[in-house]
Amino acid sequence: MSETDKSYMIAPRPDEAGLSSTVTGFDQNGATVETRVVTERPLTLYLNRQEIVTMMTIGDHPDLLAIGYLRNQNMLHDDDVISEVEFDEELDVVVVRTERDTDYEEKLQKKVRTSGCAQGTVFGDVMAGFDDIALSENAVIKTSWLYALTKRINTTPSLYLAAGAIHGCVLCQADRPLVYMEDVGRHNAVDKIAGWMWRTNCDPADKIFYTTGRLTSEMVIKTVMMGIPILVSRSGFTAWGVDLARRAGLTLIGRARGKRFVVLAGEKRLEFDADVGQADDEPVRQRRKGSVSDPAGKEDEHAK
Amino acid sequence: MSETDKSYMIAPRPDEAGLSSTVTGFDQNGATVETRVVTERPLTLYLNRQEIVTMMTIGDHPDLLAIGYLRNQNMLHDDDVISEVEFDEELDVVVVRTERDTDYEEKLQKKVRTSGCAQGTVFGDVMAGFDDIALSENAVIKTSWLYALTKRINTTPSLYLAAGAIHGCVLCQADRPLVYMEDVGRHNAVDKIAGWMWRTNCDPADKIFYTTGRLTSEMVIKTVMMGIPILVSRSGFTAWGVDLARRAGLTLIGRARGKRFVVLAGEKRLEFDADVGQADDEPVRQRRKGSVSDPAGKEDEHAK
Repeated sequence: MSETDKSYMIAPRPDEAGLSSTVTGFDQNGATVETRVVTERPLTLYLNRQEIVTMMTIGDHPDLLAIGYLRNQNMLHDDDVISEVEFDEELDVVVVRTERDTDYEEKLQKKVRTSGCAQGTVFGDVMAGFDDIALSENAVIKTSWLYALTKRINTTPSLYLAAGAIHGCVLCQADRPLVYMEDVGRHNAVDKIAGWMWRTNCDPADKIFYTTGRLTSEMVIKTVMMGIPILVSRSGFTAWGVDLARRAGLTLIGRARGKRFVVLAGEKRLEFDADVGQADDEPVRQRRKGSVSDPAGKEDEHAK
Repeated sequence: MSETDKSYMIAPRPDEAGLSSTVTGFDQNGATVETRVVTERPLTLYLNRQEIVTMMTIGDHPDLLAIGYLRNQNMLHDDDVISEVEFDEELDVVVVRTERDTDYEEKLQKKVRTSGCAQGTVFGDVMAGFDDIALSENAVIKTSWLYALTKRINTTPSLYLAAGAIHGCVLCQADRPLVYMEDVGRHNAVDKIAGWMWRTNCDPADKIFYTTGRLTSEMVIKTVMMGIPILVSRSGFTAWGVDLARRAGLTLIGRARGKRFVVLAGEKRLEFDADVGQADDEPVRQRRKGSVSDPAGKEDEHAK
């Protein structure tokens, strides 16, 4: 694969106007500091004539966010046809129009407030479809890919590196990160990738999903619903996330930092092809914090 | 103040049964590892006969979580009287009963999906009350307190240190942490503290609120609505969080790690009494990651 082939299809845009701003404050010495902070703005989503939700987002890719949200909430089905996605930047409104009417209204009745960086709407029928999904048995993840992916993602110029306080999700194939989305809400970053996959008719069977956030039940459910067989995070696990991953046959890799990681479900897809002794620990300058991640050195204690 | 006076009123309970469990997996060498993961379970909240929300929580303090949630959503007012809080552990249900009827129904219409570790329900009338709140002008935070608090919190035995992947919020007074709540959802940790404050009739005017999570709009709104004048985090900021803090006169301190921090609003309450040269950097073993925090060394770059 040539160098060109390994470039991102969508990469973060840390310098795009509107996604961050510079504010002035003071540091521990009382000295004036200028610091960049990420944008957080409301975006109200309509499906046809029905108002669905107002999301807090950095504001990029509103069309993909809208489609991915509806898709991950099971409000758009495989055979739905989107006739138009209309974004009004002044009103902070995005409208998704479909050719036929949709049956979202009763689903709005059944909301669940989810954990962590989740937005609180896992609908009852999302879980109902969960057990019907068969993830690819043939998918693999080599440890050499895992190390290459995390290193590449951590060193890619991003809003995270420029301003902090933002989540990232990356759709990957083998050792190549394809689509890297960022957002103040991790759920938004996931949804933007789901929107991109729907728009491009992307096959999930050979993909790897990387997230900076924790491996909670919601994260596992979304990955399974997207049909992706492998989920990787720098951060840690919840017990229910592990349970659901095992139930769905999802490969669940967490605490992936430098050469370290822990796999708690679906280890059959993991190929140990890298020499761990040769693998890098993360240099401090490349070190990216996880979301409410594990205490430093913790992996060492538990790996003995 | 004696050592006893400095003990927590409520501290984390890392060894309490049910809050975490041990699961078996594999590490980067293919070796079997046993690792602790935090619990994540649903809790459905009723206010009188109305189902309000299902939350994902570790499960401790369901009564305080329920009250704090209703309080932070403006569903309970100052003059409401709670006649009973009933928790059914088998059904994962908590019911809050009030002496008079409550007017939550129309509020349920206006939900906003919030950023980050937020749960998606900031109601319209929460923001409506925001501008009416006058935070204490007399409150102060000394840098020596800030250093003492963060060091104490980071070294307190917690589910975070035992299992990772969990948020913490701490209500503090001067250099003393009073109430330290943890949860898989940061919003739940905040709400449990709000519930404790309501139950104990706690005066917010001289309190400091510490969170491991980011300083988003929702975090700022909740702190202001709780009447607490000072908000501190290890993690970073969003632009709207900074705007709202300035509008409310809230003191907003972020990226507080070791001797470093940045204050972006309400700096008038900050007293620089510590010798920064003498203050500790965080030892690696005490280092606690922020939630989607700032890249290592970033503060240095921007403080020049």
